[in-house]
Amino acid sequence: MTHSAKVAVAGVGNNISALTQGIRYYANLAAQGVPAEEFPGIKRPEIGGLSVYDVEIVAAYDIDAEKVGSELNEAVFQAPNNYPRLGVEMAPTGVVVETGISPDATVDDEIRRLARSLRDSGAEVLLYSLPTGLQWAATAYAEAALTAGVAFVNCTPEIVGRDEQLHARYVSAGVPLVGDDLASHIGTSVVHRSLLALFAERGITLASSYQLNLGGNEDFRNLREQGASKRQSKLNALAQDGVPLDRVDVIPSAGYVPHLMDHKVAYLNIEGVGWANTPVEVDLKLRVQDSSNAAGVIIDLIRIAAAALRAEEKGFVAAAAKLLKSPPKGHPSYSAHDVEASFAALSPSAS
Amino acid sequence: MTHSAKVAVAGVGNNISALTQGIRYYANLAAQGVPAEEFPGIKRPEIGGLSVYDVEIVAAYDIDAEKVGSELNEAVFQAPNNYPRLGVEMAPTGVVVETGISPDATVDDEIRRLARSLRDSGAEVLLYSLPTGLQWAATAYAEAALTAGVAFVNCTPEIVGRDEQLHARYVSAGVPLVGDDLASHIGTSVVHRSLLALFAERGITLASSYQLNLGGNEDFRNLREQGASKRQSKLNALAQDGVPLDRVDVIPSAGYVPHLMDHKVAYLNIEGVGWANTPVEVDLKLRVQDSSNAAGVIIDLIRIAAAALRAEEKGFVAAAAKLLKSPPKGHPSYSAHDVEASFAALSPSAS
Amino acid sequence: MTHSAKVAVAGVGNNISALTQGIRYYANLAAQGVPAEEFPGIKRPEIGGLSVYDVEIVAAYDIDAEKVGSELNEAVFQAPNNYPRLGVEMAPTGVVVETGISPDATVDDEIRRLARSLRDSGAEVLLYSLPTGLQWAATAYAEAALTAGVAFVNCTPEIVGRDEQLHARYVSAGVPLVGDDLASHIGTSVVHRSLLALFAERGITLASSYQLNLGGNEDFRNLREQGASKRQSKLNALAQDGVPLDRVDVIPSAGYVPHLMDHKVAYLNIEGVGWANTPVEVDLKLRVQDSSNAAGVIIDLIRIAAAALRAEEKGFVAAAAKLLKSPPKGHPSYSAHDVEASFAALSPSAS
Amino acid sequence: MTHSAKVAVAGVGNNISALTQGIRYYANLAAQGVPAEEFPGIKRPEIGGLSVYDVEIVAAYDIDAEKVGSELNEAVFQAPNNYPRLGVEMAPTGVVVETGISPDATVDDEIRRLARSLRDSGAEVLLYSLPTGLQWAATAYAEAALTAGVAFVNCTPEIVGRDEQLHARYVSAGVPLVGDDLASHIGTSVVHRSLLALFAERGITLASSYQLNLGGNEDFRNLREQGASKRQSKLNALAQDGVPLDRVDVIPSAGYVPHLMDHKVAYLNIEGVGWANTPVEVDLKLRVQDSSNAAGVIIDLIRIAAAALRAEEKGFVAAAAKLLKSPPKGHPSYSAHDVEASFAALSPSAS
Repeated sequence: MTHSAKVAVAGVGNNISALTQGIRYYANLAAQGVPAEEFPGIKRPEIGGLSVYDVEIVAAYDIDAEKVGSELNEAVFQAPNNYPRLGVEMAPTGVVVETGISPDATVDDEIRRLARSLRDSGAEVLLYSLPTGLQWAATAYAEAALTAGVAFVNCTPEIVGRDEQLHARYVSAGVPLVGDDLASHIGTSVVHRSLLALFAERGITLASSYQLNLGGNEDFRNLREQGASKRQSKLNALAQDGVPLDRVDVIPSAGYVPHLMDHKVAYLNIEGVGWANTPVEVDLKLRVQDSSNAAGVIIDLIRIAAAALRAEEKGFVAAAAKLLKSPPKGHPSYSAHDVEASFAALSPSAS
Repeated sequence: MTHSAKVAVAGVGNNISALTQGIRYYANLAAQGVPAEEFPGIKRPEIGGLSVYDVEIVAAYDIDAEKVGSELNEAVFQAPNNYPRLGVEMAPTGVVVETGISPDATVDDEIRRLARSLRDSGAEVLLYSLPTGLQWAATAYAEAALTAGVAFVNCTPEIVGRDEQLHARYVSAGVPLVGDDLASHIGTSVVHRSLLALFAERGITLASSYQLNLGGNEDFRNLREQGASKRQSKLNALAQDGVPLDRVDVIPSAGYVPHLMDHKVAYLNIEGVGWANTPVEVDLKLRVQDSSNAAGVIIDLIRIAAAALRAEEKGFVAAAAKLLKSPPKGHPSYSAHDVEASFAALSPSAS
Repeated sequence: MTHSAKVAVAGVGNNISALTQGIRYYANLAAQGVPAEEFPGIKRPEIGGLSVYDVEIVAAYDIDAEKVGSELNEAVFQAPNNYPRLGVEMAPTGVVVETGISPDATVDDEIRRLARSLRDSGAEVLLYSLPTGLQWAATAYAEAALTAGVAFVNCTPEIVGRDEQLHARYVSAGVPLVGDDLASHIGTSVVHRSLLALFAERGITLASSYQLNLGGNEDFRNLREQGASKRQSKLNALAQDGVPLDRVDVIPSAGYVPHLMDHKVAYLNIEGVGWANTPVEVDLKLRVQDSSNAAGVIIDLIRIAAAALRAEEKGFVAAAAKLLKSPPKGHPSYSAHDVEASFAALSPSAS
Repeated sequence: MTHSAKVAVAGVGNNISALTQGIRYYANLAAQGVPAEEFPGIKRPEIGGLSVYDVEIVAAYDIDAEKVGSELNEAVFQAPNNYPRLGVEMAPTGVVVETGISPDATVDDEIRRLARSLRDSGAEVLLYSLPTGLQWAATAYAEAALTAGVAFVNCTPEIVGRDEQLHARYVSAGVPLVGDDLASHIGTSVVHRSLLALFAERGITLASSYQLNLGGNEDFRNLREQGASKRQSKLNALAQDGVPLDRVDVIPSAGYVPHLMDHKVAYLNIEGVGWANTPVEVDLKLRVQDSSNAAGVIIDLIRIAAAALRAEEKGFVAAAAKLLKSPPKGHPSYSAHDVEASFAALSPSAS
């Protein structure tokens, strides 16, 4: 029988809400006798002997005062988190959100504190999923994991897996390091990329294309810019009896739409020319649950990292290459064959 | 026989390119014997006895070094103008673009210089169509027109028609003043507004809605914001053999797409709920030629202003109320009846 | 206190599923203290003193062997019905579906049988909602209602309210007759019509337009065959000043897509030209819950009919004019003023 | 120097209009010094030493009274043809459309007459491009080509290349036979197929999908009737690992919309579920010039057939496998390596 992967999470945002609710959702399916091969939205029912519900959160870190001290199951629903409640019953986890590494404290002390907490929790993997842009935090958490001998997964674009010196120290310590930057389960980039490739493959000459992204979670709020006055002016133009303007959002040139909550919407347009310079045009709208898009990949990265630790692998794990936007040596360095071989090496029978 | 309206233009941008080419296009149709009632895209074939081709540009002002000194017909195609060439043959106008009011010179001197130029040109109307945001310029041109006794049309949101003191001085001088802020011929606002009104009228409860605008002309460039690094990262994700990335634009949260040139694209989404809280959803894409959208309204404002001057009307002209976003006293002050009465009063036989 | 309207239904399809579940949904809201003015998706919280939940089904008729003999609450979920379960708890109604008028039996006997059943049930209104195309059935049910002194509402395009002789007999008998042909709460026709009107109003010349409808319920399966007459009826619904219908194409049933269940999807495209013959294009997708679209209007027609019976009105009730596609004398015969006066006359305090 | 491929065409519809105008368009580009690698919309600038403009129509057959007896350049614009005029100047071809094989005449006589005409014309290739559904005509033209020793290209789904006995006789006679059924340059099937594959590859579970096609040319008018077999053929085109076809609906001719002329519009919808059963939705509109989509592939098939004849190849030519919907032994029988080897064998230097 397989022991669940024990995971600590740094950052209790929408991704963790999606992750914890989803794990529970699939555990319920399994309890109802649904075979793992029929689980909706899952590409690999098993990685390294671990099913998608064989993941247990054993520690959680955040610096939001409303989250610290809460039971994990409550913290994941704390604003500004806005991933939907999926209606699955969440049993108490026993995990209380602890204070994460603070920018104000002495970093070395903090790293020591975290390493101790990680060791005490029994975590095999530390999942780093803070807001984008905090390089210092990514580095500090990675140091803490290394100190504690815990595998590290970096969901953000911060440089961790690509930091050669850090990677070398993980290798020396015999600890897996998986990063950087989560690829979406299915996102705008991959859809856009597929259609552009199709045009090229068929000999349609690309004339122009654009891609617009909008959403309503914290990621999009951070992306937002000025435009307030223009927005108000356009809203005014819509004012009329019976229209509740507080439910209308006008974006002259941007993409933070609070009503979308954790949904992400993308618009693509591709214009090309074919035979005799005659036009071909594609218009596409994509709508996804943003954090499900993350969690659907996180679940694989966690299992890869945990299985790698158990199999005594060190540093980067090739199985993760396609699940990341920036693997250490770039995508072309990892062939499909390498990736599959890496997955195979993670299975318990392989050792 | 009607004498053409003589018009001076301040700002030789895409709007003027659309205006001058369009006037020529319709003049050609008329020469081919097409009755004015069958002209495409024209709501009012005649205003105050003036057909849409009864408009003659007699002076033009700009401060772009590439435009000043050029024949008007060449200046309208000067970058960054990017309204398309419609393929109509443009006879020489004899109008050379003059230097407009400069922010560096003494304003009073400039006003005097412009007033003299306007008088010399024989203009009946000055059309103000500079980039949005230059209140000082709008005011200065309005002063010059007032000094010269020339009717003024303000296409921009700057406060001119709504400036009560200035309006009073136009009235005293017996000169028409038409502003502020051009409504589009058919634009995002009016389409969005119509659909929201329809939802309200039918008793569908609005849940949420958004509107996105993008375009490729100078207006949109001005609206642009940061986001450069994010944009590059998303572009990188599209990189692959056979795909010319220089023809791909990715906008994480914005709307300046150079490939669109003078086209404007809007995406609307409207979500509501009907009976028993079940959903209703509308998704809409609108694509227009941005400056045609302006010129189709400008042609009416010019004719209103010229006819009003000839009919010895003073200050604001009610016929223009629905063609502006911000008429002096707000839309509700001008009833449909007032507007039609104003149009009627402009016809030569009415005087 | 108001007594609920007592209604018998002929045809237990998706419309009745939407109607019964919706009534329960709103009753629950009321029980939770939500004021009727805040009910989602409701235009008129009260008609003739009746709220939307003041409607009680007291008899139901169908000829489907699977439905006859079932409790109404079970029959509404019987295939081919595929309106969703809304998750509201449905208390037993005590109504068992009776055999409707059969095409095989002697019609006069059947009418007598139904009239007796209607009288026994205490129904004030008979709602006729069988599949489109059964003129004989519509006539027979209308005769039964007349015999029983029960107000009649015809949801279908069959000729009942427009049958002048039948209407005269309802007037003589002092019974309300409300028909024909339900307008959708919000449907393709009204959205298409609004946008075509907007183009005309703004002076955009229509170049071409098309409308496609698809769905997955029995209506769409049936439409796939007919089509031509429905197409003309839908084109008629777009007729208005300034819209050249010869440039509009309507495809009532582009596709029967079973996966859509009771959803209806429409695609609209409108191409026009504006200033200088430059193009304007609109693309729109509309998605609605088809039978909610019907039930949201049925709830008003039932209340109108019941209140009219109580107020001793006879024959057609002007309040219903805008809720029908084919009122007896055509839409222009019923002014907005007439309609509102008719609504006012239905209120209990008015009598 | 390469001699142009000499081609006879059976059926002078939109495809031939696109083909002849396009050849002229590219010839003009070449004359202006544009290198073939920069031609828009062309995947293979050269096949067997033949550029896209190295194709000369030497004979044309049709049974439309308005086309027979006309110069080819005029016949291609004869209604119901409605491919646009591309504005390229068409030099007289010297080809007058001859009467094609008539269903009323004795077939053997007709085959002999056509074979004679083909031989007299000097044609190397006969391109069969009549309306879909005329198996007898496809067979008769193929017999005539075989008799004349002319390579045969079948653009339609009629069984010619897949007729084993006929194929054997072509092989015996040492004549190339290229068929059946043209794949589009870029069409609904390949776009739909790509997106379904992407969903499967990413582990998104398909919930439902539909595809609607509409157009305004004769193909769509004809399809409106047939439909069922075309639907199955289009479904087959989507078959691939991991895609549950029972969740996909295809509507080959949702609508005949005359205003669309030779444009084809498709709407796709794909709904899936990802992590924790949360939804993913794609909506796409594709607009192409239908006959350009055919001509962009025909130009390759003609060059393959002509080069194969010159290289003394017999029967089916593997280079054509991916350009056809139904190659003789099915797609999996022709590996990418086989296809490229076949292309290489066609080049003049290869023999």
